[in-house]
Amino acid sequence: MYLAKIRITLRPSILDPQGKAVQHAITTLGVGNVADVRMGKYVEVKIASGSEKEAREKTDEICRKLLANPVMEDFAYDLVRSE
Amino acid sequence: MYLAKIRITLRPSILDPQGKAVQHAITTLGVGNVADVRMGKYVEVKIASGSEKEAREKTDEICRKLLANPVMEDFAYDLVRSE
Repeated sequence: MYLAKIRITLRPSILDPQGKAVQHAITTLGVGNVADVRMGKYVEVKIASGSEKEAREKTDEICRKLLANPVMEDFAYDLVRSE
Repeated sequence: MYLAKIRITLRPSILDPQGKAVQHAITTLGVGNVADVRMGKYVEVKIASGSEKEAREKTDEICRKLLANPVMEDFAYDLVRSE
């Protein structure tokens, strides 16, 4: 069994108004000096697979076909063994 | 300047219907053997700070006061140097 910790982020060229709103809220909170905020998604997927190679292929397919929008988003993940 | 890569996850005891929907979609997609899916949020915050200690304190404060709901969510982050 493998646990894929997937991070989905907006591509750098895509505007992120939600991130800008959070950045403004952080400034209002009094925690200054925040240069930039980008919002993304985080997904943990537990994959029943014997080999790391197979788990990696499945995670790639899930990200490409379902979780990430390839026009606007990038994805990255870490794969860790779990029970 | 430090880049905080923040992951916000639902606590294990909290039900995650969005994750269940994604799990069902993955099965429908034909990528079998997915035991569990949990949805979370991912936030990248660029913090203008000279020391790692200060950046860590600021990130903690931002997570506790603004990004995570302490009743339902946990947070974790990695801090990396950036320009």
